[in-house]
Amino acid sequence: MGAGMGAGMGIVLGPNRYGKAESRVVRIVRDTPRHEIRDLTVSSALRGDFEAAHVDGDQSAVLPTDTQKNTAFAFAKRHGVTSPEDYAIALGRRLLAATPAATGAEIAVDEHAWDRIAVDGDGHDHAFVRRGTEVRTTGVDVSDDGVVVTSGLRDLVVLKSTGSEFKDFLHDDYTTLADTDDRILATALRATWRYARADGIDWNATYDAVRALLLSTFATTYSHALQETLYAMGRTVLETHEEIAEISFVAPNKHHFLVDLAPFGLDNPGEVFIAADRPYGLIEATVTREEETS
Amino acid sequence: MGAGMGAGMGIVLGPNRYGKAESRVVRIVRDTPRHEIRDLTVSSALRGDFEAAHVDGDQSAVLPTDTQKNTAFAFAKRHGVTSPEDYAIALGRRLLAATPAATGAEIAVDEHAWDRIAVDGDGHDHAFVRRGTEVRTTGVDVSDDGVVVTSGLRDLVVLKSTGSEFKDFLHDDYTTLADTDDRILATALRATWRYARADGIDWNATYDAVRALLLSTFATTYSHALQETLYAMGRTVLETHEEIAEISFVAPNKHHFLVDLAPFGLDNPGEVFIAADRPYGLIEATVTREEETS
Amino acid sequence: MGAGMGAGMGIVLGPNRYGKAESRVVRIVRDTPRHEIRDLTVSSALRGDFEAAHVDGDQSAVLPTDTQKNTAFAFAKRHGVTSPEDYAIALGRRLLAATPAATGAEIAVDEHAWDRIAVDGDGHDHAFVRRGTEVRTTGVDVSDDGVVVTSGLRDLVVLKSTGSEFKDFLHDDYTTLADTDDRILATALRATWRYARADGIDWNATYDAVRALLLSTFATTYSHALQETLYAMGRTVLETHEEIAEISFVAPNKHHFLVDLAPFGLDNPGEVFIAADRPYGLIEATVTREEETS
Amino acid sequence: MGAGMGAGMGIVLGPNRYGKAESRVVRIVRDTPRHEIRDLTVSSALRGDFEAAHVDGDQSAVLPTDTQKNTAFAFAKRHGVTSPEDYAIALGRRLLAATPAATGAEIAVDEHAWDRIAVDGDGHDHAFVRRGTEVRTTGVDVSDDGVVVTSGLRDLVVLKSTGSEFKDFLHDDYTTLADTDDRILATALRATWRYARADGIDWNATYDAVRALLLSTFATTYSHALQETLYAMGRTVLETHEEIAEISFVAPNKHHFLVDLAPFGLDNPGEVFIAADRPYGLIEATVTREEETS
Repeated sequence: MGAGMGAGMGIVLGPNRYGKAESRVVRIVRDTPRHEIRDLTVSSALRGDFEAAHVDGDQSAVLPTDTQKNTAFAFAKRHGVTSPEDYAIALGRRLLAATPAATGAEIAVDEHAWDRIAVDGDGHDHAFVRRGTEVRTTGVDVSDDGVVVTSGLRDLVVLKSTGSEFKDFLHDDYTTLADTDDRILATALRATWRYARADGIDWNATYDAVRALLLSTFATTYSHALQETLYAMGRTVLETHEEIAEISFVAPNKHHFLVDLAPFGLDNPGEVFIAADRPYGLIEATVTREEETS
Repeated sequence: MGAGMGAGMGIVLGPNRYGKAESRVVRIVRDTPRHEIRDLTVSSALRGDFEAAHVDGDQSAVLPTDTQKNTAFAFAKRHGVTSPEDYAIALGRRLLAATPAATGAEIAVDEHAWDRIAVDGDGHDHAFVRRGTEVRTTGVDVSDDGVVVTSGLRDLVVLKSTGSEFKDFLHDDYTTLADTDDRILATALRATWRYARADGIDWNATYDAVRALLLSTFATTYSHALQETLYAMGRTVLETHEEIAEISFVAPNKHHFLVDLAPFGLDNPGEVFIAADRPYGLIEATVTREEETS
Repeated sequence: MGAGMGAGMGIVLGPNRYGKAESRVVRIVRDTPRHEIRDLTVSSALRGDFEAAHVDGDQSAVLPTDTQKNTAFAFAKRHGVTSPEDYAIALGRRLLAATPAATGAEIAVDEHAWDRIAVDGDGHDHAFVRRGTEVRTTGVDVSDDGVVVTSGLRDLVVLKSTGSEFKDFLHDDYTTLADTDDRILATALRATWRYARADGIDWNATYDAVRALLLSTFATTYSHALQETLYAMGRTVLETHEEIAEISFVAPNKHHFLVDLAPFGLDNPGEVFIAADRPYGLIEATVTREEETS
Repeated sequence: MGAGMGAGMGIVLGPNRYGKAESRVVRIVRDTPRHEIRDLTVSSALRGDFEAAHVDGDQSAVLPTDTQKNTAFAFAKRHGVTSPEDYAIALGRRLLAATPAATGAEIAVDEHAWDRIAVDGDGHDHAFVRRGTEVRTTGVDVSDDGVVVTSGLRDLVVLKSTGSEFKDFLHDDYTTLADTDDRILATALRATWRYARADGIDWNATYDAVRALLLSTFATTYSHALQETLYAMGRTVLETHEEIAEISFVAPNKHHFLVDLAPFGLDNPGEVFIAADRPYGLIEATVTREEETS
């Protein structure tokens, strides 16, 4: 991060970066009548020695965010988008090379998935329907130290209607929650995994495999708490994918409260719930390899 | 609608209604180990002679919105949710019956779809993943005149990467748009269809069939304009479903602008687009049967 | 509305309209060093005989939404923006005149308010801070029948910490709500008032006056229910402003539930509340003049 | 952060924390007829040795997020809310003390401001109107190392209609942006300042003073770039407030593009702009004291 000496009184510029956020880049591959679509939201940021821009208003070292945006669109053509990761690495390298004052470039790409529309049982050549709420993400950091790729997903909304309990927790003077042996467990998962290296990875296949592992582990693991479920998901991913160094989760516990129907002469054995918006539990955890923490 | 005489000066209460909006009702069917889930957002409103509540503050004729909410949850158990339509009709009849001053009850239900999580190729018994952005909707009006059901969907995001043109339009002094023979056509569709009757309909099967028709017609119809595409979609639905009296669309034209890459020495034959947020075209159209308009 | 005969089977085009939604028009008046700013979101729609566009894909009668957008920006310069209403009337007249097939033009304008930044106690000449969540709205309908102006506001969030009760309401089998003599009453008000005429009105002064009346009536009226409060607000506006024919409200009852602190040995006499997101009550009412309903 | 040894293969739990997010706590002070309101969104998180909960599903060391929520509401009564900072410190200390396994508690509070409704020129005793989009924030970290308070604001939307240029920047092959001598500069400011100590501070007065300084500096500083403006704002705050150790900004550059009206025979000398949603520039910078970075 750029940090240097400012004017008197010992006040100085600390960490800083700048870039263009959320360019909506849509790339159609139309080399054959069967089109492909990659639908991306692209953000870039540069860090480095940009003190003159802050302290003196001197822009001569600043590659404008408008140029960063132009490069994002141009590279969707020049380099193509075989995966968000490959595209982001190429874009990051270009922006770093184009900006002598920069010491690092950070690229973030969200990919929005589309399915082909089914017509008579087959997927159509050039008509698509948006797949879901879930977003595939990648963050790439390019610097003299190399390339670090952290991929993931967010807004993968999952729910178990049984196979989840929460009990035998710590009590204090403000505890009113009762133990439960059977509850709904639901979250909108955000998972990010850092790759141990940036080459020789099949980004798309790995994404699909990790996503499938996360889902099946969520489904098949009995849950004593969301923490335990997340740890199990992370451990399975690390056990299966040696190319992944670490995986982190941010998971809101989307509460579903059992509705008391007794006043209306009805029992409610886990059948009718109210889904609450706020507040929600928020669980954050990283699962890593021993060597990573030493 | 309740409308009556107010205090002096000829000022009176006009149309009015009240209810509870957006109860998040989740119903798990767990009669067997293979659970089912219906995830609903339920709103209800009552209309009728509620003048005393407005003019005098007298609540004696008012079934509170809290009670409406309670009834929505209780009916998810008592009546069950085989379809949003059936549930909404039952709820509407109950609220109307419970409120002597009411002349009509309006129920709106959004259903959020879940898929079973795939484990070893099979859908899991009690673990689910949220399907997509798209929402199944129904609006039911219950009154002495009977039951009117208007079902539909919203946020069905579709895109064609070719097979769409827009040209030979009206010009005036403020026209700068060029004709195009090939563009991206994309929208987040909202469609609502009014049923000709409220009984003898398989609500779930009809929903699936209409949704599939809308998608396949969008995919396979060459488009001279979004208006033409919507009309073709509506016409196909009415031709195929005699039980549907009328279908209406609200469709933002989600513009994808071709990016000019010439300054960077690149051509761009329909490959790189910027997806714009605002402004957007907004097309609204109803397709109906002749007898409906006479 | 355009409605005509379509192809066989008696399927025809029903009501339809099209336009450009949410153009973000910012107008700076800089005739003097003391700048003025009008920050608008502008939508326009045309209705009329556009059957050929829908049925045959023939665009020759269609003024593109792109042209509507161009006109919105051009008129911010050509006509200026002394008020949203004046600007919308001019824009609607232009679009109707430019489109022979159109029978009506509908313009909707949201205005986002800015205050001058205070510097040494005075408002700065050209630096502004966004005022609030509240939006001033207007909808103008221009047709051969004349001009109808419906102005208003939305997202005016108000709250009373006392002076509100809710009791003696209708009970049924699903009632659990207790009577209350003292509660928080809060809403995000949407109010729209239709003017009796379109000329001779000081749009800005009337807006300010109605807004102040709505607020002071909300503040000073003891409330037996949100319905009563809305009616009192509407009645006051109609009594005071003969140029307003009718006023309508859409008001979510934003529930604030008293938190039960007894388990923690604390009483809670109206001091600590949880503000709930969903569900919420939703009250809709129109206050009108007798002659309007005959 | 809790990090320990997990099961075989060298896979271990890394950093983790858990808590309750976004409790909507509304506190009315009604000791006199002139009520006060504090409207807060409260989040808490605990970090420490929670490995058993993750690895073994053992909850015995876990203070449930439900209890954290209860404590947040109870402390709004027991401790009161004279400022978000004081309340957050008390809440953090309590949660840390109640949880033996915890090594730190993090409390985040957003405060939503209300103004009194004006009635006959005076502010009403118990009726309020929501002030604006802007949110006052505080984050408090309580651990054995002491209490760290980082306060701030977000969504303070500001705009200058002149007094801003952007030129003489770095060019490369992807540069198309032209120099400009006069543009609109607008942002939705997020500022956070870390206090050098946690006692002896008048939190409310300091907040008001810093907010006023940020606004007046934005207004009166000629801007060569948003970076320069942010640095000037930060420097002024640090120069004026010795009790603040560091201030950080996240500022989207909300682009307002001059509309080309030449095709319509109109000039546009800085009068009509289109406000763009995405992409936007994103500038992040910290201004600090020299001793902080050594």
